[in-house]
Amino acid sequence: MKLRLKITLAFLMFAGGAFAQIPALERVEPAFWWVGFKNPKVQLIVHGEKIAGSAVSLSYPGVKLTAIHKVENSNYLFLDLTISTATRPGKFPITFKKAGEKALVYTYELKARNSSPQWAQGVTSKDLIYLLMPDRFANGDPSNDVVPGMLETGLHRDSMYSRHGGDIQGLINHLGYLKDLGVTTIWMTPEIENDEPHASYHGYAVTDYYKIDPRYGTNQLFKTYVNKTHAIGLKVIKDLVHNHIGTESWLIKDMPMKSWVHQWPKYTNSNFRDAAVMDPHGAAADKKQMLDGWFDRRMADVNQSNPYVQNYLTQNHIWWVEYAGIDGFRLDTYPYNDPVYMADWAKKIKAEFPRLSIFGETLVWSVANQAYFTQGNTVNRGFDTQLPGITDAQIKDAITEALNGKEGWTDGVNRLYNIVAQDFMYQDATRNTIFLDNHDMSRFYSNVNEDFTKFKSGMAMLLTMRGVPQMYYGDEILMKGYSNPDGLVREDFSGGWAGDKKDKFTASGRDKKENEAFDYVRTLANYRKNTTALQTGKLMQYIPRNGIYTYFRYDAQKTVMISYNGNEEEKALDTGYFNERTTGFKGGVNIITHEKLADVKQLIIPAKTAIIIELTK
Amino acid sequence: MKLRLKITLAFLMFAGGAFAQIPALERVEPAFWWVGFKNPKVQLIVHGEKIAGSAVSLSYPGVKLTAIHKVENSNYLFLDLTISTATRPGKFPITFKKAGEKALVYTYELKARNSSPQWAQGVTSKDLIYLLMPDRFANGDPSNDVVPGMLETGLHRDSMYSRHGGDIQGLINHLGYLKDLGVTTIWMTPEIENDEPHASYHGYAVTDYYKIDPRYGTNQLFKTYVNKTHAIGLKVIKDLVHNHIGTESWLIKDMPMKSWVHQWPKYTNSNFRDAAVMDPHGAAADKKQMLDGWFDRRMADVNQSNPYVQNYLTQNHIWWVEYAGIDGFRLDTYPYNDPVYMADWAKKIKAEFPRLSIFGETLVWSVANQAYFTQGNTVNRGFDTQLPGITDAQIKDAITEALNGKEGWTDGVNRLYNIVAQDFMYQDATRNTIFLDNHDMSRFYSNVNEDFTKFKSGMAMLLTMRGVPQMYYGDEILMKGYSNPDGLVREDFSGGWAGDKKDKFTASGRDKKENEAFDYVRTLANYRKNTTALQTGKLMQYIPRNGIYTYFRYDAQKTVMISYNGNEEEKALDTGYFNERTTGFKGGVNIITHEKLADVKQLIIPAKTAIIIELTK
Repeated sequence: MKLRLKITLAFLMFAGGAFAQIPALERVEPAFWWVGFKNPKVQLIVHGEKIAGSAVSLSYPGVKLTAIHKVENSNYLFLDLTISTATRPGKFPITFKKAGEKALVYTYELKARNSSPQWAQGVTSKDLIYLLMPDRFANGDPSNDVVPGMLETGLHRDSMYSRHGGDIQGLINHLGYLKDLGVTTIWMTPEIENDEPHASYHGYAVTDYYKIDPRYGTNQLFKTYVNKTHAIGLKVIKDLVHNHIGTESWLIKDMPMKSWVHQWPKYTNSNFRDAAVMDPHGAAADKKQMLDGWFDRRMADVNQSNPYVQNYLTQNHIWWVEYAGIDGFRLDTYPYNDPVYMADWAKKIKAEFPRLSIFGETLVWSVANQAYFTQGNTVNRGFDTQLPGITDAQIKDAITEALNGKEGWTDGVNRLYNIVAQDFMYQDATRNTIFLDNHDMSRFYSNVNEDFTKFKSGMAMLLTMRGVPQMYYGDEILMKGYSNPDGLVREDFSGGWAGDKKDKFTASGRDKKENEAFDYVRTLANYRKNTTALQTGKLMQYIPRNGIYTYFRYDAQKTVMISYNGNEEEKALDTGYFNERTTGFKGGVNIITHEKLADVKQLIIPAKTAIIIELTK
Repeated sequence: MKLRLKITLAFLMFAGGAFAQIPALERVEPAFWWVGFKNPKVQLIVHGEKIAGSAVSLSYPGVKLTAIHKVENSNYLFLDLTISTATRPGKFPITFKKAGEKALVYTYELKARNSSPQWAQGVTSKDLIYLLMPDRFANGDPSNDVVPGMLETGLHRDSMYSRHGGDIQGLINHLGYLKDLGVTTIWMTPEIENDEPHASYHGYAVTDYYKIDPRYGTNQLFKTYVNKTHAIGLKVIKDLVHNHIGTESWLIKDMPMKSWVHQWPKYTNSNFRDAAVMDPHGAAADKKQMLDGWFDRRMADVNQSNPYVQNYLTQNHIWWVEYAGIDGFRLDTYPYNDPVYMADWAKKIKAEFPRLSIFGETLVWSVANQAYFTQGNTVNRGFDTQLPGITDAQIKDAITEALNGKEGWTDGVNRLYNIVAQDFMYQDATRNTIFLDNHDMSRFYSNVNEDFTKFKSGMAMLLTMRGVPQMYYGDEILMKGYSNPDGLVREDFSGGWAGDKKDKFTASGRDKKENEAFDYVRTLANYRKNTTALQTGKLMQYIPRNGIYTYFRYDAQKTVMISYNGNEEEKALDTGYFNERTTGFKGGVNIITHEKLADVKQLIIPAKTAIIIELTK
């Protein structure tokens, strides 16, 4: 999530403890579960009118009802089940009985776990992530554009913050486009229900953790989407929001307990200062406001020190992986979460899904601040976050500086060199997600002032630098827009809607320049897909010389040299200094133009251009 | 040392192995030693014409000649002595005998160690360091202004890079001035011999490690200076240069071996990139050039992987502490040194002098890069430098930004807040030397564009922030100058020379503003001297609010609140938010104006002003 939403929304205080007219047994979550997890325990949340007054019973071989928790709000019960390793899949009734009333019965199911090798397979530096906003990518099912009964009912494609109608079916319809482009992984901004009255399209104000937003599709359709994605060799990342909850959530409108979210005497924002979390000299008040302050008036700050909340969130995330086969998690607003809970969460997730990838959003101030949040306790804090990866905004800023800046001792290409050198602070920087833009920042093509050469150079660095590269939908067709207001960077992908004037999913719908951009990305992404040196090879970088920044990616198979000329004029580069990497090679192939170079002793590089040469013997 | 000297000097290649006309026994170093060190070994370097052809013998109870090393150059011998713990102080002959020649005899002395509690007592955050250049501070002995036989013979006070005549006697004459100002520690730029033909006044091109430069005085005078300094309760830091050696040194003109310094096929500068040392992706060639490249054509890069060099340097440093009673070491150009040797060096120094302070010059790019060089392996490198402290250039830049910058998310006062928050990367940031300027950078008063309010605010922060504060001579009388060329920040302290128009060591020689500046620093420095909260108290800082940055220094005795208004206009500050620190206090005293405040609920702070309030009950 972006630091601050630009729109102002009405402030809402909670009734906390009062209860609305709800059915006698409205819901049980998780609605079903599995046998075979490392953790034998699951905690069911039961919501129903005065359900706390019921006696609860169940009987199933291997399953014990080990605790029944009554909480502040008598419309809730929390049931602790312990499932022994010998338990077989199957169904059994859970009975809720009040004196003098007919028993309520919920049929609980324990399923067998999915053993597909594509389940939770992990997203690594071998991949290329494509980030999109489902409301803005493609509308495959106009029948779900407006869903009666939901708080936001209009569809206004001409309005930045309204629903535009994109959905999961639209994405399914264009999986072939993404596969062709060379993308290997899809990350949607949250697709679960956001039943808020305004600007709910972005997905970060969840109102139902277990339900795909009906405007995007159904849980079943989401599962179909993951299956189809896996079937063509692609992967899926799910965007999780631990930190906040939409104020229209059933969990807020009839709260289990006041402490489900952080309560303040009056509305209090987070101060948005990650430094307050790590500052050894920090005031407790600043840290508390950072972690417990609300993200927005419509996004209540979830209290992650509440054990019921902890169980609820963790189980929900496990549920989605096992249900649909998610391959990786992106964690929204990572620094705003309770650090102790998040470390515990990560341990539990990794225990159940060892291959699953996890990276946290860290829009923070420096490499050290980013590294602070990564696992391995590599900068001094005495605490291991257990977080494998982060969003590497420092690389993004540094590539932009290399493209737009003027060379100085620490400016221009030297900034990028310095930032990459700071990888000493990470346990493994190849787990960082690297990017040029996303849904919260100005689009890359706009950031380089629509300079097509810089665009290509940036894409070249993104797809050859260490880490897991992530594109933002439409970058490949030169979509533009500045982030103030943020809606401007969330425009529709032209061709995703029936009747769009141009279908930019097809070559004929794109203009010449757009096709050139698309082809550049496609060529490079597909080359990367077949070049382990760029995926998992080592990186060696050199101190920039004469404003030219050179690095190599290499393994036993290939050595690829990337040289970016940050000057405003063409320069000659003598490569003799790089003999540590070039010895044994004679010529090279320009992997974009396919031009063969008989020798690479000297290279002529145009201004602001990155060349990518696969060295040959 | 500054990264690059602006002057160009003639390039010099070494004869290496050839020998000049030298006396049969020119020197033995260390010329004497002590009994009672933890390390029982000492290695003598013996220099004399074809001395390697001599048989060596000695006899003294407890002393064994355990090895005699012949090296490339037959004018050298290295003698390993092992001194048992039972050895008594005393003198004994070492005999050098060539067949058919009369024996040469060197009378070696082993002294008793000094047991004074003021010997190597350490410089800590309780202190205030005053950095000066001995050639530019005061001329107490005109008889040594020009020393016949030395390469630079002229005295030209009107020339930036010539000798000006300042000396140790001049400093001794003004110890009272420094004591009165509130200084507790004196750091001179290197005072040992720099017998170079040009610009030798700065002291970083050593030509004799064991000899005070005759233009500054004698070894005995230096010892007297330390004694007098200790006698009035002040301390002494010595500035050490491990990295390079003046090309006119006897060790270079008749080298023991070619590998005494790093040799290059042609003259090769360091690339001055500390990042190359820590970069996990760095090329070996870049790292080698950083560490082994020369600092300047007149400053050869010492080869610290040579065990003879290691012994020579380490012993020299131990010698000076034991000889004169040094309290702390400042290590020049720290990142340019061999890391493994420097760690070993620090361990050996700390073993002999556990209280001695050590801090390294680290003019590097970020807090992380600074922290990389500090002990405790707190940022990920898998190697402990053993270096207790560094020069905290990041704090310097951040205070300057707080004074000159405009508030932004990470600019103005927020920069300073963010930098201080990054203390999580240090084992102990209170060992950092903090400063506003030094001999290699523009003077602070010029950096704030001669804005007197900013000057005072900067001094306020320097003297109340965590760390060991360091001033630069003349800051207290508003000396000015930009660092390009660097000589401009190395002007003479007016009054240090007989006949100077104004004697700014006295109130009557200073103008009104200079006296106000002097009094401000004096008041604050003396307050600090008596306020443990500012010396060793804890620090608590708050996220800046409305452009005002507030922090507290506190211990069981006192709580001091420092608030700096970074805005261009006066602001009111409500202090209620700080109750974590202000609870139990009611009023306060402005420690500069001595104004008593009945309550501190709201403070009115003028633009760009720092107020320092000692809270009262």
